[in-house]
Amino acid sequence: WYLVASLLTVLTSSQGILTTLSQTDGAYKYDYSTVPFLAEVFKLIVSSFLLLRECKRLPSPKITTEWKSVRLYPIPSVIYLIHNNVQFATLTFVDASTYQIMGNLKIITTGILFRLFLKRKLSNLQWMAIILLAIGTTTSQLKGCGAAPCDSLFSLPTQGYVLGLLSACLSALAGVYTEFLMKKNNDSLYWQNIQLYTFGSMFNLAKLIWDDFRNDFENGPWWHRLFDGYTFVTWMVVLNLGSTGLLVSWLMKYADNIVKVYSTSMAMLLTMVASVFLFGFKPTLQMFLGIFICMMSLHMYFAPPSALVD
Amino acid sequence: WYLVASLLTVLTSSQGILTTLSQTDGAYKYDYSTVPFLAEVFKLIVSSFLLLRECKRLPSPKITTEWKSVRLYPIPSVIYLIHNNVQFATLTFVDASTYQIMGNLKIITTGILFRLFLKRKLSNLQWMAIILLAIGTTTSQLKGCGAAPCDSLFSLPTQGYVLGLLSACLSALAGVYTEFLMKKNNDSLYWQNIQLYTFGSMFNLAKLIWDDFRNDFENGPWWHRLFDGYTFVTWMVVLNLGSTGLLVSWLMKYADNIVKVYSTSMAMLLTMVASVFLFGFKPTLQMFLGIFICMMSLHMYFAPPSALVD
Repeated sequence: WYLVASLLTVLTSSQGILTTLSQTDGAYKYDYSTVPFLAEVFKLIVSSFLLLRECKRLPSPKITTEWKSVRLYPIPSVIYLIHNNVQFATLTFVDASTYQIMGNLKIITTGILFRLFLKRKLSNLQWMAIILLAIGTTTSQLKGCGAAPCDSLFSLPTQGYVLGLLSACLSALAGVYTEFLMKKNNDSLYWQNIQLYTFGSMFNLAKLIWDDFRNDFENGPWWHRLFDGYTFVTWMVVLNLGSTGLLVSWLMKYADNIVKVYSTSMAMLLTMVASVFLFGFKPTLQMFLGIFICMMSLHMYFAPPSALVD
Repeated sequence: WYLVASLLTVLTSSQGILTTLSQTDGAYKYDYSTVPFLAEVFKLIVSSFLLLRECKRLPSPKITTEWKSVRLYPIPSVIYLIHNNVQFATLTFVDASTYQIMGNLKIITTGILFRLFLKRKLSNLQWMAIILLAIGTTTSQLKGCGAAPCDSLFSLPTQGYVLGLLSACLSALAGVYTEFLMKKNNDSLYWQNIQLYTFGSMFNLAKLIWDDFRNDFENGPWWHRLFDGYTFVTWMVVLNLGSTGLLVSWLMKYADNIVKVYSTSMAMLLTMVASVFLFGFKPTLQMFLGIFICMMSLHMYFAPPSALVD
């Protein structure tokens, strides 16, 4: 899983960069809400193809089609839907950069739900590593001394804190629930994916249609908006988002949520460093401190204890 | 030593607060350079008194008076003298707040010299804890987003980096050398103190006289400046500085430099928190992050390994 986690880090990191590059003059010339839908469809196609290939070989993959099992697969989509709405509500109380800072709470809530729901034991050192990871990512995101607007983390309305915490819990719950789903039985990964992404595509499609009605078809129906303004880079964004999704599914089955959290946190730092080179961002001391803290945390969590204490 | 280290933390922390309180309208009404001299004399008197008391009891304390041994005791004073001059030179290339940030390097150089000169082994986890302590103190000192002047740590002249590093090495060397001196033989702590502080008083006196000549006796000879403008708080500063010095000597003999580094780092954080309450400083997110990091570091360094990895 080291390889898969590293690949996820690189792809997640390029996701941010590609999304920035896909803008023309600082604005999206295409409808960004069509991207996750296409990514779900892409993942569905790839998983179907891989399942078919797997079915032609022996031993044939295990496939559970009982309704009792299938009915669990829309739940992650439902959680994400609630999460998106909570996120939207939070952003009416909290500005985007403060929301990003609060988002690091997700690392800690993932650890807690991982312990509570999946009953996985973590050593004290691993708990400390998880807290340090959240501190490290937060440190790297601290505003530099010239930046404005100023951080107002201590003077938010109460709703801001409550919703921010709820958002972190929902995000962690979606991850932990997906891990539970993928490890529940030894069904083929691709069959599990197909169920996840079928519901995922349906929910995303429903959102597109919902947007159509909400905007009174101002921008045309969703199938008109689907490929409108798409460039090569936009397609890269779709493929990238789809691929990271497939890698996350793989990690949920064969590794765990904590590995995923490390991958995506490292990706965030990698994006920062890449932005210094690609977009000429000024590197800050807090970026370096954050990177160091996360590296320590990574080592603390994954290194064999004997290597740490001699 | 837990108690002594905690006491050192509290006293070092109140040192900064008392020094601020000893100012009248934001300026010193007394000559600050007389304070370290009086503190050395105070330590000398206290140690002499304690040695006398110790001599009256059995078994009588071990006292080495050979020149071969005594001649080693001025060396810490010499190192501090060089350090002060390097510090002065550094501050011509680097502003005070950047110098403070670079000062955290001292934590890491202390670890390195502790390993190299005192041949003390540290586990990987302890090394990580030391690096984290330096990162934590640095994080807590990061400028908030409204602050000016801006941190220019990445655009200093080369001399700034070289002198800053040299300053961190000298400061660590003084500590490590003192520990070597105190543990070299089982002489009475008070006798060792008397030797240290006699030379300390002499060096401080020499500095006062040197200042007299440099300023052409503009402010009068040193004995005129000695108690001039002293208030009750100024005397508290002297007693406090002297007491912390005595505690540091004790730690050097019965604990070690790393314990001292933790004490003084924690004191820095305690001063920050106290300043929020006493002087109405606005608490920043980086202060809390820094405190968390240092707490983790403390736990990582001192907790028994078995408690960390189960």
